[in-house]
Amino acid sequence: MTYPEIRLIGVSGIPEVGPGDDIAKMILDATIAQSTPILDGDIIVVTQKVVSKAEGRTVSLHNVNPSPFAIEFALRWDKDPRHVEVVLQESRRIVRMDRGVLICETHHGFVCANSGVDQSNIPGVEQVCLLPIDPDASARTLRKAIYDGSGNDVAVIISDTFGRPWRVGSTDVAIGIAGMIPLDDLRGQMDPHGYILRVALSAVADEIAGATDLVREKISGIPVALVRGMQFVRGEGNIQTLIRERDGDLFR
Amino acid sequence: MTYPEIRLIGVSGIPEVGPGDDIAKMILDATIAQSTPILDGDIIVVTQKVVSKAEGRTVSLHNVNPSPFAIEFALRWDKDPRHVEVVLQESRRIVRMDRGVLICETHHGFVCANSGVDQSNIPGVEQVCLLPIDPDASARTLRKAIYDGSGNDVAVIISDTFGRPWRVGSTDVAIGIAGMIPLDDLRGQMDPHGYILRVALSAVADEIAGATDLVREKISGIPVALVRGMQFVRGEGNIQTLIRERDGDLFR
Repeated sequence: MTYPEIRLIGVSGIPEVGPGDDIAKMILDATIAQSTPILDGDIIVVTQKVVSKAEGRTVSLHNVNPSPFAIEFALRWDKDPRHVEVVLQESRRIVRMDRGVLICETHHGFVCANSGVDQSNIPGVEQVCLLPIDPDASARTLRKAIYDGSGNDVAVIISDTFGRPWRVGSTDVAIGIAGMIPLDDLRGQMDPHGYILRVALSAVADEIAGATDLVREKISGIPVALVRGMQFVRGEGNIQTLIRERDGDLFR
Repeated sequence: MTYPEIRLIGVSGIPEVGPGDDIAKMILDATIAQSTPILDGDIIVVTQKVVSKAEGRTVSLHNVNPSPFAIEFALRWDKDPRHVEVVLQESRRIVRMDRGVLICETHHGFVCANSGVDQSNIPGVEQVCLLPIDPDASARTLRKAIYDGSGNDVAVIISDTFGRPWRVGSTDVAIGIAGMIPLDDLRGQMDPHGYILRVALSAVADEIAGATDLVREKISGIPVALVRGMQFVRGEGNIQTLIRERDGDLFR
């Protein structure tokens, strides 16, 4: 009896990433070192932070001049006003602003806490890490570099950790994609028992990002994972197709 | 070099499920038939529909008397008023009701379209399928039956397909759990580069449910998947810990 099987493989041994680093080479080297070299048809999921760091998307808080608006919110909720200022600069809309929490819509259209701006806690290194400017472009660049370095045609997903309404806890979702279509469209089809598929647009890119979170081990610092054996719809891919239009969203 | 690896294994050959069926035995038989027998420490993810059918949670629409409220909404949006009536009966609150879409809070506290009520499309078989009354109890029963039938201590997740705000497409999430803690609590910890983990409560049960959707193949009707090789926090588990309290949710 045949059955579908997918392997989720965490990639250990990726060194600390800095501006200008060749993360494609780091990934290729690390996957070879752990005897799981990349294969054609793999999906490579990379956390946003290593991509952002390689692209130099960090800001030293010493260079940030917070606005009066940022200062007032920060004072009220015991935040760093410079961090709040960067969050505001990374936002095109504040969705909710209450109890010290900033739920923002980023310039890309993602809705998440603090516009995805992460604060470092290294003493004396007061910097924050921003999302990539164009995560699809980042994914495309990485995909091409993997191809150039190994000859393998892979898909690339850049993931980040987002909270969500109604349910406790975060899940990893896709914020950038290359080489695959992020939605599986099953509309109009029915299952073998005659039930119409109730929700027939499956956000597979988000499910893949969440799946690889299970092997990525935030604490031990595994920022990359491979998804092997999955059938997916190839194509250029575009993360905007995962962002709900404001007019079609009953929740805005 | 060691690395984390998880296998997602779809379970083929589960027969059509009816009221009173022993799905634990069906799962054990099917996993043996495809030479992937269940092992201690596996997580077994089962879609809601087979659990509901085994528990007799289907309703014949011929026995439903829609209220005037259900009839009016159904007429306006070209719905079956009996289906709308069942959805209302399965709800404790309507979250949104617009453009023919009913986003409901179920009696369990889940927020989803149509309170999880699925419509059959088999001609002449006008029935709908409801969520289990107590999905945690369903998961516990299944877990015990797997243990009794195989001697293996597994975790069980019951999954369903939910839409979500802001992002297009659905993902599978956990609606019942047994044998594992659904949230991974990383609060206060930091990654190796000194970044405080920004979102430090990871909804691993939802990530697992979504991951197995990738091998479950809605069209071909694979309703069960195994997750093998994952480190998880054992415990009784309780799906209520995944439901955000109304007072703490900025999105309600």
